[in-house]
Parts: sequence; C-alpha cells; structure tokens
Amino acid sequence: MKLQAALALCLLLVTVSPPRSQAAARDAKALAINPLPDWNDGAARSSIIRFVESVSRKGSPDYVPPPERIAVFDNDGTLWAEQPLYVQVFFISDRIHALAPEHPEWQNQEPFASVLRGDMKSALAGGEHAIMEMAMATHAGMTSEEFDKIARDWIAHARNPATGKLYTDMVYQPMLELLTYLRGKGFKTYIVSGGGVEFMRPWAERVYGIPPEQVIGSSIKLKFELRDGKPVLVRLPEIDFIDDGPGKPVGIQMRIGRRPIAAFGNSDGDLQMLQWTAAGSGPHFCLYVHHTDGVREWAYDRQSSIGRLDKGLDAAAENGWTVVDMKSDWRRIYPAVATR
Amino acid sequence: MKLQAALALCLLLVTVSPPRSQAAARDAKALAINPLPDWNDGAARSSIIRFVESVSRKGSPDYVPPPERIAVFDNDGTLWAEQPLYVQVFFISDRIHALAPEHPEWQNQEPFASVLRGDMKSALAGGEHAIMEMAMATHAGMTSEEFDKIARDWIAHARNPATGKLYTDMVYQPMLELLTYLRGKGFKTYIVSGGGVEFMRPWAERVYGIPPEQVIGSSIKLKFELRDGKPVLVRLPEIDFIDDGPGKPVGIQMRIGRRPIAAFGNSDGDLQMLQWTAAGSGPHFCLYVHHTDGVREWAYDRQSSIGRLDKGLDAAAENGWTVVDMKSDWRRIYPAVATR
Repeated sequence: MKLQAALALCLLLVTVSPPRSQAAARDAKALAINPLPDWNDGAARSSIIRFVESVSRKGSPDYVPPPERIAVFDNDGTLWAEQPLYVQVFFISDRIHALAPEHPEWQNQEPFASVLRGDMKSALAGGEHAIMEMAMATHAGMTSEEFDKIARDWIAHARNPATGKLYTDMVYQPMLELLTYLRGKGFKTYIVSGGGVEFMRPWAERVYGIPPEQVIGSSIKLKFELRDGKPVLVRLPEIDFIDDGPGKPVGIQMRIGRRPIAAFGNSDGDLQMLQWTAAGSGPHFCLYVHHTDGVREWAYDRQSSIGRLDKGLDAAAENGWTVVDMKSDWRRIYPAVATR
Repeated sequence: MKLQAALALCLLLVTVSPPRSQAAARDAKALAINPLPDWNDGAARSSIIRFVESVSRKGSPDYVPPPERIAVFDNDGTLWAEQPLYVQVFFISDRIHALAPEHPEWQNQEPFASVLRGDMKSALAGGEHAIMEMAMATHAGMTSEEFDKIARDWIAHARNPATGKLYTDMVYQPMLELLTYLRGKGFKTYIVSGGGVEFMRPWAERVYGIPPEQVIGSSIKLKFELRDGKPVLVRLPEIDFIDDGPGKPVGIQMRIGRRPIAAFGNSDGDLQMLQWTAAGSGPHFCLYVHHTDGVREWAYDRQSSIGRLDKGLDAAAENGWTVVDMKSDWRRIYPAVATR
C-alpha cells in the first residue's frame, strides 16, 4: 500500500508539474501565438510584426533570404538601462577603487581623486580626456583572458545604485522578446554599441543570447606576445576604434560586411546606424526606444547628457521610423524573474 | 506505339539521369561515407577525421559544444593558389592599368611606372612602402559599395598568368571538402587572411561558402559621410589593421572573441594563429599545407619570398601539428568542374 501511495503521488506530481520539455513546448506555443507578450497592442508592436512577417514569409514581395536578415541593436538604453550613468562607468569607478592600493598617487590626481571620494560627477567633468584616462587605467595592462574574468566577476555582483538591482536584471523584457522573435524568424541579431566589446561579451550570450562574434563595440589595441612560450594578447592603453555615432556604420561594415535590414537604438549616437540601415535598397526597419516612463524607468530625451535623443526624434518623424513609447507600449520593463 | 516508345524513352532518361535532388542526395550519402574524397589515405587525412569526430561526437571525452567549434583558415596558399604572386597583387596591377589614364604622372613615378611597363618585379622591389602606395592608390578613394563592385567584376574575369585559369578555379578541392566536412559537423568556418577583407568578401561566400561576416582580413579606414543626404562609407588611404603574423590572433580576438579550436595555414605568417589555437585549454587541431607539388601546383617552403614556410615547419615538427604533403596527400588539386 505504501509503495502504491508513493507511486500515485509520483504520478500526481508528474501530472501536475509537467516536465521541463512540456513547459518549454507550452512557452513556444504561446510565443507562436503572441511573439511579443510584453508589448501592448499599438502602432509600435504592429509595425514590428508587419515588417518581420513581410520579410520572412516565403512568397512575400518583400521576402529577404535568411543570410541577409541582419538586425543590429544598440545596447545602453536600448537593451538595458543606462541611468543614472552608463553601466561601464560604474565598472570603471569600481575598478579604480579596487586598483587604488596599487596607485597611491591617485589620491591627489584627477579624475581619480574624485572617483575615490565617490564624486563621479566631478570626475566626469573632465570630459572626454578624463574618461579616456580612467578607461585606459582600468581596461588596459592585462591580457584579454584576465580582462574577461574581471568583467565576468564584476557583472555577477555589481548593482545599480538607484535600484539595487543587478545590471543584468535591468535589461528590457520587451526587447528580450523581440530578440527571440527575430531569431525565430531567421534573423542574426547583433549588438552594435559604443561600449567596450570585451566588456560586453562575457555576459551578452547568457543575458541576450548573442554570441561574442555578434557583439560589435569600441575597442582598445591588442598585442600578441609570447610569455614564457605561452601566447597572450595584451591590452594596450591605446584606442583602436570608437563604435559610436558615425562609427557604427563603419563597425557594421568592418565586422559584418552586409548592410542590416533592421536597426534598433535609443539615442542620437544611433542615428547614423539607422540612416545606414534605412538607405539599403530593399525592405528595412528602423526603431527608436523613447524613454518616457519616469515611474518604472527614467524619462529623458532631448536635453539628457546621457542617451540624448534629439536629432534622432526629428529623423524618426521625418522618415516614418517606429518610436516606442516605453510608458504606453511596454507592459513590463524588466524581466519578472530576477535571477537568471 | 509511338506514344509508348516516347514514354519508354522518358522513363529511361529519368532512370539514367536522376533529377538534381536525387543526385544531391547521392552526393550527400557518398560524403557521409567518405567526407574527404580527394584526400588520399594517410596520416594527414586520418588526423583530421580523428579530431573532428572526437570533438563532435556526443559522449566523447573531447566533446566541444557547437558554438565553440571555431575553425580558422588562412586564404592565400591555404585555400587557393598564391603563385606566381598573391592574387591581390594582380588585382592591384590591373587596377593601376585601368586607372592610368586618370594619372598621367604615373608614367614616370615608381612603383607605378614599373607596373605600367609590365614589370611587377621591379615595382615590388620598392618593398612594403611601394606595396602600400599601390594598395592605397587602388583600394581607397571610392565607397565600400563601389569597391565591392570593382572586386566582384575583376574576380569574374581575371586569370592567373601562369595557368590561364580563373583565380576562383584555383581553389584547392581538398580544402573545399574540408570546409564542407567541418560545417557538416557543426563548425563555424572563418577566413583569417592577410588579404584585404573587402577584396575577399565579394566572392568568398560563392566560392568557399563563407559569408562576409566570417571573413577577417586586413583593412583600411572607412569614413561615414552623407552625400546629398545619402549615407556612404568612403574608403580612406590609411591602414586600419594588418591581419598577418601576430595580427592574426588579434584579428580573431577582435572579431570572433573566442579562441579557435582548429587552425589551417601554409606559411610563417600563420604561425601565431596556430600557436594561439594550440594554446587553448581544450582539444585543438593545427595543420599546415606544405606546397610540395611542383608538377600540379608549385613547390616551395623555407626559401620562398611568397608564402615562406620555415619557422612554421619547425614548430609543426616540435608540436606534432599535421603537415599536408600536397603531392602525396591530395588526389586532386583544383576542382574538376571549372565553371561554378
């Protein structure tokens, strides 16, 4: 009897909580019916689905063969939050604190002294020169493998000071759905970001499903060396490429060698990428994420020092690009399940 | 009776020459039994198959998940012939002839004057500086789209002066089989060449099945511009990156962001790429193509000015890398069917 009861219980459990594959199949079925569950019905959602279906449905006049279905995404402010400062700026700040014991001179040397006093605003007041100095001090001098580990360890624990959330929990759920939807329709999804390429790669695959070879970003120079017969790539304190603004189409051409047919951004730094995409000879789709939700996220556009969207808003209106109103278009901002 | 005879004939024809899909299925079956038909039995062929099977068979102790199955191939001398000169040098020469009417000053200006007299040897005697000058004069000054068309048109008609064959008919049949075999086993195949990335991309997909985003090469700088409101990428006469020697591991890290597990080269310019691959923590495979066949191709190694294989031969012996003896390992050099 006991054995029978146990067996019955087992059977019940199996019936009540379907095995993982069944749940996955159910999720897949739900997504097939509604591929963008956290997008409210509206012009933005409709325009995405109309475009994606028209280029991927065989026999459609706008059909695009799968190898040409290239979709490019900005990262900061488009796939994850960029306020109160770019995530990589917090990384730089934390690295300066971690490295300070080896650099006693930083106590009296700007912009480092301000960072060590916790005054990021003054540190950044030094402009591009100060940012570069901080970036080089924290991103160069180690091997690529060592930097990968530093970035990986940091992102696993660092939290946004405004929300207390892990940065990787502040990715936009509707954009994750969009990435999945596009890949399901044969698109190759790329990140094209002003951020450091080797800062993003360690977590982009886990968080966005985007493998390292599909992450395009800014970079510093690398140097091949044999150290005790072992080859290493040393990170040099020298800019190789800035993947921002007019650099984005350049990065796309250098790395992909094909013009995207879909581009997604949120700031004027993405404008040239959208223009480049829109100038293709075939069907194309351009979208701006507009930060309009001061309650659930942040509201900013034309006047913001971070993620300014000014010329881009005008260009979107002029060219009929899709503009996502985060407040009304998105049912949810961040993923419901925080731990991944 | 006539109808019956016609029907019988039709039936016969259908039976004798199977439709394309049946032929393709037969080819696929033959390749499944022998994935490398133009490789003779021997140590090189066995080492390739042993490695590929060991990393791709589930349950194998050396199993490598598909996303990490990155294979990198040098181009000149590894995938296609590089004698009597690199193909891109012939391209440069032909472009100088084509552009000469716009540059009357070239008649008296080296290295251009030598090229126009048909004396490539003297033109190249000016060394790296002369090569750069010729490369910039022929590769810069137009948009990326314009250059794509120039390269595409040239490769469709240009022929190797020594053989009279189209350059794209001088690709190595055994290496084409190897590319197909690797892709069938879940590998992502890349070109990592000292050649110009935008020179190779226009034909690499058609000839090797390698899409533009998997071609890594040397590059010049690009500049984004709006011309009458239309965005273009202008090719600047300025080196961006030299993807040769110690530059190859750098190019791999910058573009792919993962270490390859298999690397294929033919010269000392590939040595660092093979070293970088061999230094990975998991299973790996390194192979040198050794040009030993002076009858069917060219025989050269330690003393050659083009494609010198000297340090590489020593490193291969020291590290147990596979060395392909073209003369004995390859049943055929070039594809049987010239037209593709």
